[in-house]
Amino acid sequence: MTYDLWYWDGIPGRGEFVRLALEAAGIPYRDRAREDDGKNHDGDSASLVEDLQRDRPHPPFAPPYLVADGMTIGQAANILLYLGEKHGLAPADLEGRLWVNQIQLTIADMVAEVHDVHHPIAAGMYYEDQKDEALRRAEDFRANRMPKFLGYFEKLIQPDGWLTAGRWTYADLSLFFLIDGLRFAFPRRMLTIAHKYPRLMALHQRVSTLPELQDYFKSDRRLPFGDGIFRHYEELDPRE
Amino acid sequence: MTYDLWYWDGIPGRGEFVRLALEAAGIPYRDRAREDDGKNHDGDSASLVEDLQRDRPHPPFAPPYLVADGMTIGQAANILLYLGEKHGLAPADLEGRLWVNQIQLTIADMVAEVHDVHHPIAAGMYYEDQKDEALRRAEDFRANRMPKFLGYFEKLIQPDGWLTAGRWTYADLSLFFLIDGLRFAFPRRMLTIAHKYPRLMALHQRVSTLPELQDYFKSDRRLPFGDGIFRHYEELDPRE
Repeated sequence: MTYDLWYWDGIPGRGEFVRLALEAAGIPYRDRAREDDGKNHDGDSASLVEDLQRDRPHPPFAPPYLVADGMTIGQAANILLYLGEKHGLAPADLEGRLWVNQIQLTIADMVAEVHDVHHPIAAGMYYEDQKDEALRRAEDFRANRMPKFLGYFEKLIQPDGWLTAGRWTYADLSLFFLIDGLRFAFPRRMLTIAHKYPRLMALHQRVSTLPELQDYFKSDRRLPFGDGIFRHYEELDPRE
Repeated sequence: MTYDLWYWDGIPGRGEFVRLALEAAGIPYRDRAREDDGKNHDGDSASLVEDLQRDRPHPPFAPPYLVADGMTIGQAANILLYLGEKHGLAPADLEGRLWVNQIQLTIADMVAEVHDVHHPIAAGMYYEDQKDEALRRAEDFRANRMPKFLGYFEKLIQPDGWLTAGRWTYADLSLFFLIDGLRFAFPRRMLTIAHKYPRLMALHQRVSTLPELQDYFKSDRRLPFGDGIFRHYEELDPRE
């Protein structure tokens, strides 16, 4: 009954969307690439690299993936769709279920853009080898994409503070993580524009104080940001 | 009962994923931005721009979106999830449903990368103003990303030629469109590497001859590629 989560060790990354949902719902899971197997593999995710090579009827393209109920489920939004249905982390009716999935997919779109700000040419190349291009892309991201996405998310939040009135869904947790990551990667820009998104900022604050997540936040199961999808480079977030 | 599809006129784009599913399933729909309202708006999508500004409980971030059964459903993969469930365009069991959604999301990931090959800096800027960066990104895309994605999709195809044995799903139609778009945008590269992906090429051929789609393919409801997501620039697909 315990689920296996597989994601790169060392960064929260897209695995964090799944981790937050599992933790907030109190679902038992093992974070497999982070388990100590007696070998020295801190952060090298050796067991994940090995597991990815296994023959499976439904192989994932990339982590994260969740092994649950005999299935291997890939793509963060797809994992959350499953967890949402099975553990009540999204509305049960068709319209609400599709709506929360839709928001999650739009969050995923922004996350892909956040990644490409520091890797606009190739994910497999060093930042230093695409820094000039990153400077250009970051400028557009700060000026155009951030307000477009954040302005959109802001207007989705209901008067009671959640995306769907009544209680948090997995998309609320994901929105919290998105804001958290943006604050880490673009602290200056976020400080400048935060006042335009009071509901988003309140949602971030509210998730950060959810009783269900306090143990997790204090634990070493939660990874700090670093050289992952959300990265901070001074030059990509200049003084304004 | 007739659905309303909303997508930019003039390019197949992400709307085509939805259009193919609607057409292949014989579901009645109106392609709203392409309807003649008596004004001269060929390709200007004026009615879509207007419709996007309407107040809705569940506003889409961007087209395509489908108005169906009183709901507005955004994000192509989410629309297909709905159509798949409601019209039997994906397996009905949980595992099969999640699997087809997972493949669709991975197709969407590749489509986003295809777009960023010609717009690596900013979607809102002209190609000509980011051509140098596009040349670099295209090189990585052709060398690394194309084989990675196509090799992955190739191994998913079942011995009977479909993604899930027995019959086509909406993801098979989407994979057809992806291959179609890649052949348009990167004809030289695709010619060189096609032999490595015999099942993918066979699936493309098979969907192109599906009886359910022949009327559509001959109609003007099907839009040619052009300056959309899949674009052909000689310099991004050089002689090898």
